[in-house]
Amino acid sequence: MDKLKEKILTEGKVLPGNILKVDMFLNHQVDYQLLKEAGLEFYNFFKDCGVNKILTIEASGIAVACAVADAFKVPFVFAKKGSHSNVGSNVYTSEVFSYTKGKSYTLTVSKDYINKDDRILIVDDFLANGEAVLGLKRIIDEAGGELCGVGIIIEKRFQNGYKKLVDAGIKLKSLAVIESMNDGNIVFG
Amino acid sequence: MDKLKEKILTEGKVLPGNILKVDMFLNHQVDYQLLKEAGLEFYNFFKDCGVNKILTIEASGIAVACAVADAFKVPFVFAKKGSHSNVGSNVYTSEVFSYTKGKSYTLTVSKDYINKDDRILIVDDFLANGEAVLGLKRIIDEAGGELCGVGIIIEKRFQNGYKKLVDAGIKLKSLAVIESMNDGNIVFG
Repeated sequence: MDKLKEKILTEGKVLPGNILKVDMFLNHQVDYQLLKEAGLEFYNFFKDCGVNKILTIEASGIAVACAVADAFKVPFVFAKKGSHSNVGSNVYTSEVFSYTKGKSYTLTVSKDYINKDDRILIVDDFLANGEAVLGLKRIIDEAGGELCGVGIIIEKRFQNGYKKLVDAGIKLKSLAVIESMNDGNIVFG
Repeated sequence: MDKLKEKILTEGKVLPGNILKVDMFLNHQVDYQLLKEAGLEFYNFFKDCGVNKILTIEASGIAVACAVADAFKVPFVFAKKGSHSNVGSNVYTSEVFSYTKGKSYTLTVSKDYINKDDRILIVDDFLANGEAVLGLKRIIDEAGGELCGVGIIIEKRFQNGYKKLVDAGIKLKSLAVIESMNDGNIVFG
């Protein structure tokens, strides 16, 4: 998606630790018109997969999920991080290790909102080590639903999430694939 | 907004402690088509106020902000809860007391994304005691921006947020106003 790549190049900032700061348009301030275009890209890629639900993780996945859910005209569910008393006890949970933060956290989804009839597209803002996506996949598997694919706004191909997802047989569409960003120089794949 | 009120009556659940559980369509699973209609309602109400930015709080405000930002064709910003190392140190913060949780939390917004030229509409899923909205207002005030108004999906009029906001001279639009929900019986205003 050329417009997205241009935005990353002109506005994004590479910080130490392979961090790409794009919080001016993606995950703090949000350019929703750009995400709408992203939603249509994912729709065109996955439209023949029978998707009936979008799944993401709070907080920065939610805006992506809105745009994709709108393109598919289906509801979305966002997994909550940590223990949430207001979700109740009838939940699926999945432990996810965050390499960025160096610790694990728990994903929680109410059993009311994922079930065996669901054909689910996972979406998120970033793909790095793939642990979050695999955590959501475990929840879908436990619920007996089907994972149709994964849609990512920005993929850091130089980390190992891509390989893990492909090895797990997951259909992946990333709108901007970053091959490397050494010395602050972003190279797309 | 009749469709919203009908949805609250048919799907919502009143739990002990004046909690209205609407996580089947608003804040865990999300009916984004309903939120799009809500976005247009807010647009029609506030369209002459010169709004150039939408402000909300993660996580459950984000989907509302997407729909409203789309209606206005402006970006939105979501305040983060707690200390976020990835936001940096150039931030506005505001302490908010949550009556629901019985403790305070910190709202954080990067100084890069709110400034004196901004005319801001705050949106959120719920209004109860109004502390979150007033916390966002303090950030807008500190940035020198202007608060144009507040758009709320579900207002619990029987709590005191309404009075606080009106006393502060804030223009408020709530799409469903709940006057009471004693014994699980929801009465709209």
